[in-house]
Amino acid sequence: MKLFEPIQISTLTLPNRTAVTAMVTRLSGEDGFVNQAIIDRYESFARGGAGLIVVEATSIHGGKSGPLLRASSDEFVLGLASIADACHAVSESRVFLQIIHFLKIARSGWRQKITDLSTEEVERLPAMFADAAARTKRAGFDGVELHMAHAYTMSSFLSRRNRRQDRFGGSLENRMRLPSMVIQAVRDAVGEAYPVGIRFDAEECIKNGYSLPDSKQFALRFAELGVCYVSLSAGGKFEDAIHKPGDPLYPYTGYSGDRCMPGTGYENGFNLYLAEGIRSALRAHGFDTPVIGSGKIPPELAEQVLAEERCDIVGMARPFLADPWWPSRIQQGKADEIVRCTYCNVCKNLDENFKKVACYLWPKGAEHAPAPGERPAPAMTWTTDPALRAEIVRGRVRLRWDAPAGGPATGYDVFRSTNGMDFERFLATVRTHTVDKMAVSGRRLSYYVQAYDAGGQRSLPTNIVEAELPAWNAG
Amino acid sequence: MKLFEPIQISTLTLPNRTAVTAMVTRLSGEDGFVNQAIIDRYESFARGGAGLIVVEATSIHGGKSGPLLRASSDEFVLGLASIADACHAVSESRVFLQIIHFLKIARSGWRQKITDLSTEEVERLPAMFADAAARTKRAGFDGVELHMAHAYTMSSFLSRRNRRQDRFGGSLENRMRLPSMVIQAVRDAVGEAYPVGIRFDAEECIKNGYSLPDSKQFALRFAELGVCYVSLSAGGKFEDAIHKPGDPLYPYTGYSGDRCMPGTGYENGFNLYLAEGIRSALRAHGFDTPVIGSGKIPPELAEQVLAEERCDIVGMARPFLADPWWPSRIQQGKADEIVRCTYCNVCKNLDENFKKVACYLWPKGAEHAPAPGERPAPAMTWTTDPALRAEIVRGRVRLRWDAPAGGPATGYDVFRSTNGMDFERFLATVRTHTVDKMAVSGRRLSYYVQAYDAGGQRSLPTNIVEAELPAWNAG
Repeated sequence: MKLFEPIQISTLTLPNRTAVTAMVTRLSGEDGFVNQAIIDRYESFARGGAGLIVVEATSIHGGKSGPLLRASSDEFVLGLASIADACHAVSESRVFLQIIHFLKIARSGWRQKITDLSTEEVERLPAMFADAAARTKRAGFDGVELHMAHAYTMSSFLSRRNRRQDRFGGSLENRMRLPSMVIQAVRDAVGEAYPVGIRFDAEECIKNGYSLPDSKQFALRFAELGVCYVSLSAGGKFEDAIHKPGDPLYPYTGYSGDRCMPGTGYENGFNLYLAEGIRSALRAHGFDTPVIGSGKIPPELAEQVLAEERCDIVGMARPFLADPWWPSRIQQGKADEIVRCTYCNVCKNLDENFKKVACYLWPKGAEHAPAPGERPAPAMTWTTDPALRAEIVRGRVRLRWDAPAGGPATGYDVFRSTNGMDFERFLATVRTHTVDKMAVSGRRLSYYVQAYDAGGQRSLPTNIVEAELPAWNAG
Repeated sequence: MKLFEPIQISTLTLPNRTAVTAMVTRLSGEDGFVNQAIIDRYESFARGGAGLIVVEATSIHGGKSGPLLRASSDEFVLGLASIADACHAVSESRVFLQIIHFLKIARSGWRQKITDLSTEEVERLPAMFADAAARTKRAGFDGVELHMAHAYTMSSFLSRRNRRQDRFGGSLENRMRLPSMVIQAVRDAVGEAYPVGIRFDAEECIKNGYSLPDSKQFALRFAELGVCYVSLSAGGKFEDAIHKPGDPLYPYTGYSGDRCMPGTGYENGFNLYLAEGIRSALRAHGFDTPVIGSGKIPPELAEQVLAEERCDIVGMARPFLADPWWPSRIQQGKADEIVRCTYCNVCKNLDENFKKVACYLWPKGAEHAPAPGERPAPAMTWTTDPALRAEIVRGRVRLRWDAPAGGPATGYDVFRSTNGMDFERFLATVRTHTVDKMAVSGRRLSYYVQAYDAGGQRSLPTNIVEAELPAWNAG
């Protein structure tokens, strides 16, 4: 599988083409220090076999911001080192630290803007990034990722809505100036050989925001400056965020927030055109900089998009949260056992409320995903006959099944075949019924369901049911 | 030029690859009849040499809706015929009529939704489309375009937010059912040979809306049903529209509205990834259905995107409003004389307020763009020396020039060269100063400016000025 071909990023080799993109855990205290829960979280990604692990956004400055890691002074190095060490001790995963600068927000809804910064304050930012990057290197990380995406400072400079009147705003070159200075300062601090990756928005998804024409220019500039990869996100901006009175503005509440962390309502692979566009611009200009694509990529699509060269590395956050053993299960031929993200965004909601980020699919009360085999599955069995029923209701295929005995079942995988032989999983759900929303008429469809427990162990399949959607003009 | 290679759409040959996409004129009365002003408007597009002219959205049902054409009963055929006739009499342009169904809106902000329609009401829609299409054919149009984009009925069925509980909603097949039935009914009414085109959103640009994964499926279905082209738009939805108290909801006021009619703040070619994605899906499935791309495409980009096969036909609305002679001027080697749309969206604002749609670049009070030579240019001359000045201000190239004598100048074209020889127009503006926002450091830049009057006639160029943007790390 393409997914498990090693890939070179700068001086490093990743053992495979999966990446855990940075996601906050809210596991640290307000003090910003690493604790055992955080170490355990990342160690599980390493044990699970991720090619690249990008550790959550770590602040390069002091100041309160809810529970968030910090790399703003030397006292944090030892703790950070324990994350890198723990990962390195158990796998070949490469571990980067994402470093971030953000501006102030208040519960009143007020937020500091980049136009509030003096030129001198802006000019201090590259050194702050450089210092944090140097600490990252000292802590033993394999590389550093500069956070230039979403609602945060660097992204606001890149934004087409950057209205600064000095040499840091108002034109493409000026918008790229600070990010370019930051990359160069980081490079000077960590040396030529140390890998520096960038995560940025390939599209802002807000009014008067930028899309591919501008973001291709960013990617070319970053490649020129020698970044080891570009990792692409979208949206996640303050400009269209919905303010809940009494809460600080959360940049994942508007349309752009949905584009950043698409929920159940969105199509799989929604944002992949961005990776595709950036990658083709880089290649057309002779850069082989690897491109990390992301946004609702289930396992089958992951292999496909790599094979189609739409991106070079598949980035995922929520699917790794649901099941850190995503890569190793596939590699061991046990793709069936993956606990699949349902994109319910309970994790996002926890983040929004400064609570410890957990997955709805974990066992109740668990702080981490259970390891494979950690909780031997009680044998779940289908006791009703037939356990699975299909009916055509108002032009849609409706499936219903009964919960198995011997559970509790955490969730269900639903499989479909259009030829009666080759079944593909098309849905992960926690319910016992669904409508196959993507079924198209003209083929005989077959379905079965498997239940899984919190450890990812599967029941036997249910009975197979068949259904045929009437032609659109006959239904 | 690729732009002027004829292209086959179904049984027709377009003389070139430009299309006037449908735009309301607000020139008809509330009665929905064609009048001379409307005929003149479309005749100018024909005289200007458009390959395809799609006449504005024409209602298939009765009912008030502000000034809008109608094809809802036979009494409208004669008037509609006069548009087709007038165009055919003066050029090889092919003329389609766009037909539309929309739901009710009220000044209170209330709007009828597709879930308010009974199944029986939905089932009546295909016949209404078919009747209007039959009238279109009888009126002598070369084809009919079915409006399935933006905030209107058919688009709401295609929408991922279609929550109907019957066989017309809730799944991909059900969402496509009514549009498929409409196409088939239209086909039955007009015969196999009559060209039927579709305009639809390739991306909804709203929360929980669809993007390419779904819209590729739509395109494949429409191609299967034999449409002669797919014309792609984006957004323009009610769901994120901003309600002005006392006015009916206007679906081009939110982010999705901006994506539909991007203003000055957006990049050129912003939406082309959609045409590219749909086209590659069609080709991969063996369909050669032509794809019309649109969204801020200036002349240089038009030729480029055709050459790169990102779309097959370049669709434009506002640029044709600004200058109906866009194609013929290029074909005659007078691309310099195009009056270029500045995307100021004054036209959109007029539409929003149910006023006659005009272009800000036309002579004051004019109802139409002046024809070339219609108003012989007073000789505009640059009387200050130097007329054009460049300076580097805070990392940006700032250009200033004086208005020429002998005007009035309607606007200015600003040209740039990165090698001192090959100049490209990069901006059309009505101001006498600009910042070159897309300039990137590391090249010596040269600029000149030409003024133009309302007839598109150009002054001589100003003096050439040079500027060099300091490197990003030296500015």
